[in-house]
Amino acid sequence: MVSQSLKQAFVGIVGAENVMDAEADKHSYSYDAAVLDPVLPALVVRPSEMDQVGRIVKLCNDNGLPLTVRGAGSNLSGGTIPSKGGIVLLSNALNKILEVNEEDMYAVVQTGAITAKFAAAVAAKGLFYPPDPGSQAVSTLGGNVAENAGGLRGLKYGVTKDYVMGVNFFDVEGNYCKSGSKTVKCVTGLNIPQLMVGSEGTLAVMSEFILKLVPPPQAAKSMMAIFPDIMTASRTVSAIIAAKVVPCTLEFMDNFTIGAVEGFAKVGLPTDAGSLLLIEVDGHPAQVAEEAEKVEAICKANGCTRIQVAKDAVERNKVWEARRAALSSLARLRPTTVLEDATVPRSKIPAMMQALDKIAKEYKLTIGTFGHAGDGNLHPTILCDRRDKEEFHRVEKGVDAIFEAALGLDGTLSGEHGIGLAKSRWMEKETNRASVLFSKRIKAAVDPKNVLNPGKILGE
Amino acid sequence: MVSQSLKQAFVGIVGAENVMDAEADKHSYSYDAAVLDPVLPALVVRPSEMDQVGRIVKLCNDNGLPLTVRGAGSNLSGGTIPSKGGIVLLSNALNKILEVNEEDMYAVVQTGAITAKFAAAVAAKGLFYPPDPGSQAVSTLGGNVAENAGGLRGLKYGVTKDYVMGVNFFDVEGNYCKSGSKTVKCVTGLNIPQLMVGSEGTLAVMSEFILKLVPPPQAAKSMMAIFPDIMTASRTVSAIIAAKVVPCTLEFMDNFTIGAVEGFAKVGLPTDAGSLLLIEVDGHPAQVAEEAEKVEAICKANGCTRIQVAKDAVERNKVWEARRAALSSLARLRPTTVLEDATVPRSKIPAMMQALDKIAKEYKLTIGTFGHAGDGNLHPTILCDRRDKEEFHRVEKGVDAIFEAALGLDGTLSGEHGIGLAKSRWMEKETNRASVLFSKRIKAAVDPKNVLNPGKILGE
Repeated sequence: MVSQSLKQAFVGIVGAENVMDAEADKHSYSYDAAVLDPVLPALVVRPSEMDQVGRIVKLCNDNGLPLTVRGAGSNLSGGTIPSKGGIVLLSNALNKILEVNEEDMYAVVQTGAITAKFAAAVAAKGLFYPPDPGSQAVSTLGGNVAENAGGLRGLKYGVTKDYVMGVNFFDVEGNYCKSGSKTVKCVTGLNIPQLMVGSEGTLAVMSEFILKLVPPPQAAKSMMAIFPDIMTASRTVSAIIAAKVVPCTLEFMDNFTIGAVEGFAKVGLPTDAGSLLLIEVDGHPAQVAEEAEKVEAICKANGCTRIQVAKDAVERNKVWEARRAALSSLARLRPTTVLEDATVPRSKIPAMMQALDKIAKEYKLTIGTFGHAGDGNLHPTILCDRRDKEEFHRVEKGVDAIFEAALGLDGTLSGEHGIGLAKSRWMEKETNRASVLFSKRIKAAVDPKNVLNPGKILGE
Repeated sequence: MVSQSLKQAFVGIVGAENVMDAEADKHSYSYDAAVLDPVLPALVVRPSEMDQVGRIVKLCNDNGLPLTVRGAGSNLSGGTIPSKGGIVLLSNALNKILEVNEEDMYAVVQTGAITAKFAAAVAAKGLFYPPDPGSQAVSTLGGNVAENAGGLRGLKYGVTKDYVMGVNFFDVEGNYCKSGSKTVKCVTGLNIPQLMVGSEGTLAVMSEFILKLVPPPQAAKSMMAIFPDIMTASRTVSAIIAAKVVPCTLEFMDNFTIGAVEGFAKVGLPTDAGSLLLIEVDGHPAQVAEEAEKVEAICKANGCTRIQVAKDAVERNKVWEARRAALSSLARLRPTTVLEDATVPRSKIPAMMQALDKIAKEYKLTIGTFGHAGDGNLHPTILCDRRDKEEFHRVEKGVDAIFEAALGLDGTLSGEHGIGLAKSRWMEKETNRASVLFSKRIKAAVDPKNVLNPGKILGE
């Protein structure tokens, strides 16, 4: 618990208006987008200057107070659920874009900047920041780096980690540290920038990032391919990759998800389709034309019954609007949405689809599946009601079975949502005890009092 | 020192034929490609099975014996110079390519496999492993990962880190650990694979890698552009990048290097040229044609006096043969070759060139400069005789000045050669004390007895 004098120390750093401890505030910051129990923090503090961050971190460490940094709280694995009686550090006032360098194609940006706003600022200068997590309209870059967020363009452009050139951060004692460089090549010291990527706030409090930018593609073509069932679509995914075509985006939606999207967003999806692939190729116009033709031929050869090529930007936006509406459309159907992201090598997508079907039947679950098929990164989404204990028990069994299936197919627990609180007990199963211990030693070395987002990734 | 009984313990693991301690052996493994004093190890051991590696590591840790892993010894920063009385673990018998997966575009390979052989095996299956460090004909993948090796294709394709999806390794106690995945997206646990990249053997002994593969480019075009002086060429580099053309390769050679290459390799370089750019664009044929035209126009607009486009594979190979001969050609001229790789943001290349010129004059040094201009990663190469104390003192001053200049231009100590023993005293200058301490804490946590390649990166 936080004493009055300790509270006053936080007030001394950020001012009374930026220290919140009313019940409503505590509840507001007690949960994130994961289906997990809320945990009330003692205080919520909102720094607006970077030097305040270092002082907050030091104060927490000196007093053994658990500290959880929160951007937008769109985290899907519980990474931004605070510790009981701990501090939430709200990063959303630390949102400056400090530099967009066109000549050297990098940007320097503070941790609380919103992903989509940053991408738009970059685009306004004629450059491109590709990572586009589903929550980009609200998510912060700090959250993206902490979770190594993916998105729809991962197949061709990679994920957040592929754009992180440098990370500045405060160590647990509140000292300001630098890592990485503005140069495209840098091997000075341990690869701390990349250790920070995906560390979920457990190793340091990140302040600024140096992010790589790239020239935007000259052209793009979007297509919607309709399949009679799941297997024809999932085999098509493998066939496209095997043909050495790397689309920018290669997304899947099952019949259930199609129906949910159409019921909500009304974008004209064929609700009788067994499944859909949404595909975008981009690059040089000649390459785009060729790849679009190739993709079309592969779809047809693998049982696609109809393929629609977006004729203009309006039609193209419609395709992606449909995809972006998938999660929210599904979430409307039942009180609780359990969104998973177990990931398999791409060629194992058909096998994973079969496994999901079997799991849904075995545990009598409603699962809508969509996601980044081209990455092997599906989002089986279990619709349920958490208050129904019997049902939720089946959901938990089903989630376990999904992880088992993914690992059995040479896959991984999480493609892009992180481990957080939700999956830490599974860590040893994917690797082994020594591997987890290796990470625990690193954590203990840089955070000996276990102050930085305790319990995330590695468990308690 | 290693007692007879301890030596017998190593013999028990790998057999007498794989434990070497003759004076000639010790001398053979006492140095690498950096200009640093040799250090004699006590024993050289050569495992050929992975489980032997774990046992060797454990034996070293149990006995507090410094352990340095050595692939080909082509390291340019002293990373493979052993500790006095320590063990050298030769990795060159651990060289199996375990899997090249065409469907999912990854490979699994042991640490001692030779880079060029691996790339050829991948190419034989119709795929592409882009990282191509200068030493690729002899260097091992383990060395490449340990140093985060770059190469000529870094500009477009990135460096070794961009291809490392997973790293299996032995921790200092000899336990086998796994990290990363065969999936293109993986956020399960801390980003240990990337922490291993560039760690120079200081954190663990790496055993196998999961490496990302990509489809090969369909077409490529190579050009040699001749400039009257250094500044016109270096301004051209910035202009190409600013035009949003990303060549696969964009290399620079100054007049001194041109003369050295021509004197040795006789490939028909214009020895009267002030400087050269060697440029390759690749990708879709239409894009290649367009980009080649753009590059040609930019070169001419910036003062290029002549541009030769390679007409066929023979001419193309000749261009790259010339570039690949640069270091060895320079090295022939004087007894000692000090090859640096301080790196700056690309737009700062002209300023860095001016700084190098000034440094050469100030310290009366012979510097031949070539390198990856498109990455801002130059290789100023100081030709000297280390036995001449007065001269070598000037060389050391000059190297310091090169680092100062790079850091002053927002650059970094090392783009691709690593810190090793050569540059560790400079680490704090680029970052700060807290940043170095952060890394030291990690090192101490995973290697409490300081057994794993002591002194590298972070100093003693």
